[in-house]
Amino acid sequence: MDAEEFRRRGKEMIDYVAEYLENVEQRPVYPDLEPGYLRSLIPSEAPLEPESYEDIMKDMERVIMPGAASPACTELETVMLDWLGKMLQLPESFIAGTDGQGGGVIQGTASEATLMSLLAARCKAVRRVQTYTSDKSEVEIFSQLVAYTSEQAHSSVERAALIGGVMIRKVPTDSNYAVRGDSLKKMVEEDKAAGLIPFYVCATLGTTPSCAFDQITELGPICNGENMWMHIDAAYAGSAFICPEFRPLLNGIEGHSTVGLNGFWYLKIFFCLSTPVNRVKKRTDIIGAFKMDPLYLKHENQESGLVTDYRHWQIPLGRRFRSLKLWFVFRMYGLQGLQAHIRKQVALAKEFESLVRADKRFEICAEVVLGLVCFRLKGSNELNQNLLKKITNSREIHLVPCQLSGRFVLRFVICARTTESRHIQQAWQHITQLTFELLQEPNH
Amino acid sequence: MDAEEFRRRGKEMIDYVAEYLENVEQRPVYPDLEPGYLRSLIPSEAPLEPESYEDIMKDMERVIMPGAASPACTELETVMLDWLGKMLQLPESFIAGTDGQGGGVIQGTASEATLMSLLAARCKAVRRVQTYTSDKSEVEIFSQLVAYTSEQAHSSVERAALIGGVMIRKVPTDSNYAVRGDSLKKMVEEDKAAGLIPFYVCATLGTTPSCAFDQITELGPICNGENMWMHIDAAYAGSAFICPEFRPLLNGIEGHSTVGLNGFWYLKIFFCLSTPVNRVKKRTDIIGAFKMDPLYLKHENQESGLVTDYRHWQIPLGRRFRSLKLWFVFRMYGLQGLQAHIRKQVALAKEFESLVRADKRFEICAEVVLGLVCFRLKGSNELNQNLLKKITNSREIHLVPCQLSGRFVLRFVICARTTESRHIQQAWQHITQLTFELLQEPNH
Repeated sequence: MDAEEFRRRGKEMIDYVAEYLENVEQRPVYPDLEPGYLRSLIPSEAPLEPESYEDIMKDMERVIMPGAASPACTELETVMLDWLGKMLQLPESFIAGTDGQGGGVIQGTASEATLMSLLAARCKAVRRVQTYTSDKSEVEIFSQLVAYTSEQAHSSVERAALIGGVMIRKVPTDSNYAVRGDSLKKMVEEDKAAGLIPFYVCATLGTTPSCAFDQITELGPICNGENMWMHIDAAYAGSAFICPEFRPLLNGIEGHSTVGLNGFWYLKIFFCLSTPVNRVKKRTDIIGAFKMDPLYLKHENQESGLVTDYRHWQIPLGRRFRSLKLWFVFRMYGLQGLQAHIRKQVALAKEFESLVRADKRFEICAEVVLGLVCFRLKGSNELNQNLLKKITNSREIHLVPCQLSGRFVLRFVICARTTESRHIQQAWQHITQLTFELLQEPNH
Repeated sequence: MDAEEFRRRGKEMIDYVAEYLENVEQRPVYPDLEPGYLRSLIPSEAPLEPESYEDIMKDMERVIMPGAASPACTELETVMLDWLGKMLQLPESFIAGTDGQGGGVIQGTASEATLMSLLAARCKAVRRVQTYTSDKSEVEIFSQLVAYTSEQAHSSVERAALIGGVMIRKVPTDSNYAVRGDSLKKMVEEDKAAGLIPFYVCATLGTTPSCAFDQITELGPICNGENMWMHIDAAYAGSAFICPEFRPLLNGIEGHSTVGLNGFWYLKIFFCLSTPVNRVKKRTDIIGAFKMDPLYLKHENQESGLVTDYRHWQIPLGRRFRSLKLWFVFRMYGLQGLQAHIRKQVALAKEFESLVRADKRFEICAEVVLGLVCFRLKGSNELNQNLLKKITNSREIHLVPCQLSGRFVLRFVICARTTESRHIQQAWQHITQLTFELLQEPNH
């Protein structure tokens, strides 16, 4: 949607909202529908090709407004996450369907998605341990639990363990900054020998520093063997898996007893928000952790099994109607449009990579798989820190650094919807100009 | 703002956004400002009288756009929560000011505000205990910690304790459904005698079932004496304290060593979102709990003390620019406009109360202080359950029940911005009509 269409559609939407406010008293106080009404009103998969905005707005009145905020908010979310699951070619067991045990939930942020999975895993571990040592208190068991994640994992994983009050160990990575099975296995064996209870692994597909991919085909069987919950943090790379050429990076998801998957940062440019999703095979695993049913939250379909109460799947009680954005985006772009967008972003990163590789003063520091290019000037960390300072002070582009194997590395990320080849070329020209100036300075 | 003005302003805003998108390349990549730039550009208090929408929009370009998303998002939030603090006549120590140690943060939801305060209190308690028993591990201390809240408290308080992995005890209430000092004191003494460590009290001002007010003037000194963190959950009643006649309900907040305050549900009709705020006297108390600083989140003002990093104050990492809504609402209504709105809502509740009191078949079940009326038909719980069923099935109004002293009670809540006396009269007529029909049925 270009700015011109945005003006037109935006103003139509303002009129729609104003009309709603003016006539709200004519609308029913709450809907007269059976649980599950929504699924049969819309297709079971996202369209391949874009649909028109008019058609989507027509469906607002047909599909959403009769179900108002509730149950439409919940039911659209369930179906949209099924659409997304199918776009990702997830195994059938992760799809809610009409009677599935799996399903997804939109979490507020990726940090909350990870935290929620860790808390659910903690609860499951305590119940399991108590079946064979019933005299142990919950808190005693907490003190023995140990979680694992990559030394390259996002800080939110360590923070989740701090909040959950459990130990976390950082698994060293291989030369590609990925966690391998043998490193995890070794740590788990050590910890078991020390009387600890390994219960949770957070693997990352697309790490923050360098977009590395932990080897989940190796980690999965270890998790299964040790009764550990495996959560996959794909907050950055997740959405790229809707392209068949990137889908193999998710291979290994099939075999696990429990998998959380969050992510879809890549699509956030469409959504105006990131869409962290927790996806589980057995919904009772995640619901069981913190279910509370005071009288003021009871409703008549509570025990029917027909209704999904997303409040049990998350930290907050209230929730926003974020699946509406998924619905609009999936339909306005179509699967092919979304794939094209991801491919374009990756192509722009590859374009930047080849500019770097063609300049012998620079080096590429990690494989470029998606939209992130890790690079640096050959030379000292200080030299690269000075280059970044020059870039920051000139305020033309914005780069965030990282540390890889003790080296200070610059990160070039494609993330705006409107980025084109000319921006890549301008950015590189700017960087090489500043590099030229830097290398002219007397102390270099 | 009526629907007509909403149409006009909404369309202007669409144009503003479209223009931003079209010309984004002309804007600086990031702002060239010193930390703290925003405070001197706007008044230090909310206006008493409404300001014009034009004036506020002019300030968007003058105050916000030069500071873009960051630091404007953070700095406006700090100042808006100071405005709110002054509207609430909070003690100086809760105001951030230019060098204060206090301050506020907008949390995602009330549940998160409570959770965050409990986690911060847990962290503080562990550090305190470790100063005199340095051999105890964190998890050992967790197992001894005990939190307290009212038996009438919202389910999110118990859920916070479950997430934090600490024990929670429910304090019985008096005949007004309020927690009193002696009940808390008794429990604390019992628990200390049993070797436990009391560390946290969540008091409620305006409980969910009946809008009861815990006696914080009695609870505060006990918390201080026992080194317990006192959090005040005023999620419902909080915003009414901007009216001098309701402010005494918050008396007792002054004396505490640490106080969290969340709430402002009442204002949510303006905000289109609830605004749960955590407010602390010592910001290090809340920041200390989960501070993490990986390289990709470092910035040059990190250690200067000039910058507030709200990510340390909350569960998620990212955050929305919600203080913009506060800024618009405070200015478009003015303090007097907001007070008038709250008074109108309370008056409507009082109107409903007198209708109930005039009908001898009914009784009022709890003092009507703000916008909630708890009432029931004199008679059995079954009778009242049947009345609620009739009300629900007729779909004219929506009531949520509660249980008070074992009695099934109906709750009538004023919560829409546009509710008028005629809606109250219609609702009561509807309820009495259904009551008439119910009492005609053969089994009554």
